[in-house]
Amino acid sequence: MADSAGDLRFSAAAGRAFMSRAFLAAGLPEEDARQVAELMLLADLRGVDSHGIVRLAGYIKRIRAGGVNKRPNIRIVAESPATALVDGDNGMGHLVMRKAAEIAIAKADKAGIAWVGTRGSNHAGAGAVYAMMPLAHDMIGLYLAVANNNHMAPWGGVEPLLGTNPIAIAIPTGEEAPVVLDIATTTISFGKIRNAADNGERLAEGLVMDYEGRPVTDPNQAEHGLLLPMSEYKGSGLSLVFSLLGAALNGVATGRDTTTNADADKPADTGQVIMAIKAANFGPIDAYKRRTDKVAHDIRTSKPMPGHAAVRYPGQQGHATLLERNRSGIPIRPPLQKSLEKLAGELKIAPLEISK
Amino acid sequence: MADSAGDLRFSAAAGRAFMSRAFLAAGLPEEDARQVAELMLLADLRGVDSHGIVRLAGYIKRIRAGGVNKRPNIRIVAESPATALVDGDNGMGHLVMRKAAEIAIAKADKAGIAWVGTRGSNHAGAGAVYAMMPLAHDMIGLYLAVANNNHMAPWGGVEPLLGTNPIAIAIPTGEEAPVVLDIATTTISFGKIRNAADNGERLAEGLVMDYEGRPVTDPNQAEHGLLLPMSEYKGSGLSLVFSLLGAALNGVATGRDTTTNADADKPADTGQVIMAIKAANFGPIDAYKRRTDKVAHDIRTSKPMPGHAAVRYPGQQGHATLLERNRSGIPIRPPLQKSLEKLAGELKIAPLEISK
Repeated sequence: MADSAGDLRFSAAAGRAFMSRAFLAAGLPEEDARQVAELMLLADLRGVDSHGIVRLAGYIKRIRAGGVNKRPNIRIVAESPATALVDGDNGMGHLVMRKAAEIAIAKADKAGIAWVGTRGSNHAGAGAVYAMMPLAHDMIGLYLAVANNNHMAPWGGVEPLLGTNPIAIAIPTGEEAPVVLDIATTTISFGKIRNAADNGERLAEGLVMDYEGRPVTDPNQAEHGLLLPMSEYKGSGLSLVFSLLGAALNGVATGRDTTTNADADKPADTGQVIMAIKAANFGPIDAYKRRTDKVAHDIRTSKPMPGHAAVRYPGQQGHATLLERNRSGIPIRPPLQKSLEKLAGELKIAPLEISK
Repeated sequence: MADSAGDLRFSAAAGRAFMSRAFLAAGLPEEDARQVAELMLLADLRGVDSHGIVRLAGYIKRIRAGGVNKRPNIRIVAESPATALVDGDNGMGHLVMRKAAEIAIAKADKAGIAWVGTRGSNHAGAGAVYAMMPLAHDMIGLYLAVANNNHMAPWGGVEPLLGTNPIAIAIPTGEEAPVVLDIATTTISFGKIRNAADNGERLAEGLVMDYEGRPVTDPNQAEHGLLLPMSEYKGSGLSLVFSLLGAALNGVATGRDTTTNADADKPADTGQVIMAIKAANFGPIDAYKRRTDKVAHDIRTSKPMPGHAAVRYPGQQGHATLLERNRSGIPIRPPLQKSLEKLAGELKIAPLEISK
């Protein structure tokens, strides 16, 4: 099939340049355009294909429709030595979160830990990108986001009161690839549902239900259904507490009052959190990295389940993908490449350069 | 059946007094005995029957075998404005965690957030008890613990490298019962496995496996098996990051090197974390509580799934149980009551007073 991944690739440099051109053409200042492109590309490089360049057209649509502020005044509106609340002024979520992470790292450097919440933000792409920012400072990073669409019912119910609210945590290592966990609180993601639809597969029961609580196994019906929480009341409870930490604490409406991002011309008022912990405050950093290395190594060399080639820890595959894609480029499916060509035409910019 | 719960009850005062007597007789100082009893009773009052008085005999055994330090010097060994590392000096985990929570609350009051890790600690009972301590100060509480037995394999593997590592999060409310989530990272707990064994029921597949990855459905075989992580790689990943945050960061051995607590005469060197966030630093506390109240209320009054009487949010049932048990006493099963009578005989103390 011409559709299979691997036929077409683009280099990291080409992806960065194309996305920068697109955001610049849509009206973002040059430096902001470059930063958003860089943060989106990190998702593509680590293999989080659902949160990188595939989102470009959607973001551009919101910017052009006036749903996102092109010249935001992203600023601290409340703070204490180890906390801050950042108002994103409806700017691109990537810019808001980058600033929030910088503030968290600076505060954690002095206080040992810092927690920075956002309001008036927007979708920021892959959570792991922000959770990993503290790593370069030998800090642990944690990211929470509250989704602007409620695709989940609280466990035992059938009303959409909760989002797929993800959490990402990144932990420094020495020799091993960093431990990076990035998960939504639902059992299945829309990305996997779309894959099942593309491949003509049915969904197992227990992943999606309709508004009467009946299982939905046709992936083409799933987008109108409710995603089930991971591990029943556990995922539902985690999604709820993330709503109360990442939205309600920051003054962002959540639960039944959630601002949806269904209309491209309306602000989404997204709430997020970034936390950074300075590991050296608990003991020598090298000793910590030796311990995290040892655990990571022991897991990936442990005995696999029959049928599994090897055991992997979270972050291991993303790091391997990063190395491979930096070398060989990022695979892109022809339908996406074609839609980006169309976008380039609309924006009157040079298209994404395909390497082979 | 004489065995059914509800036939026998003891009052909160009787439970407190009996457990205090037991710890005093085992050699704890009077004030420490009283505090551990109080913290254990809170679990019983909120209906966490697996983590309260049922654990008394096990704790006493460890104390008498010399596995726990009766006169610990619980102290801060490293700190920054918003973090601390507490060495529990192998004292009772309840005392170590209580002190850690007090430190976290005092630091969060000044810095906005605080994170306190422990090493040289022991099993501390129910995580919710500590996560809830910040609530009285209008703070959010979060507790993590790293288990001293590895009952879980990393997802895709069959070696026991991870614990059931729980997380508890408590969030302040105004009129509604506080939101309190307290979950382990496995799909099923040993408590539920024991219930299935008692009731002659088989376990569903996907909960427990043997060391070759085959399903274990006989609850009587399950204690020799591996508990499966909640939601596959997600629960496995969360357990791993909790190990690296709650043990490795505090200088506690984890993963393959975990110190088990199998021998009652050996220190367990448990690692835990308590975090507190001062909600008022993000906006007026009353407005936050109105938002958390609204979400809690909307969930518990939302439409239930067919077959469910009502939707409940985490913490709602525990609070109702607390009110009911404070009024009517705590139910106790005859076998437990008999074993506590035996314990009283061994310790030469007055037995637990049964109210009816």
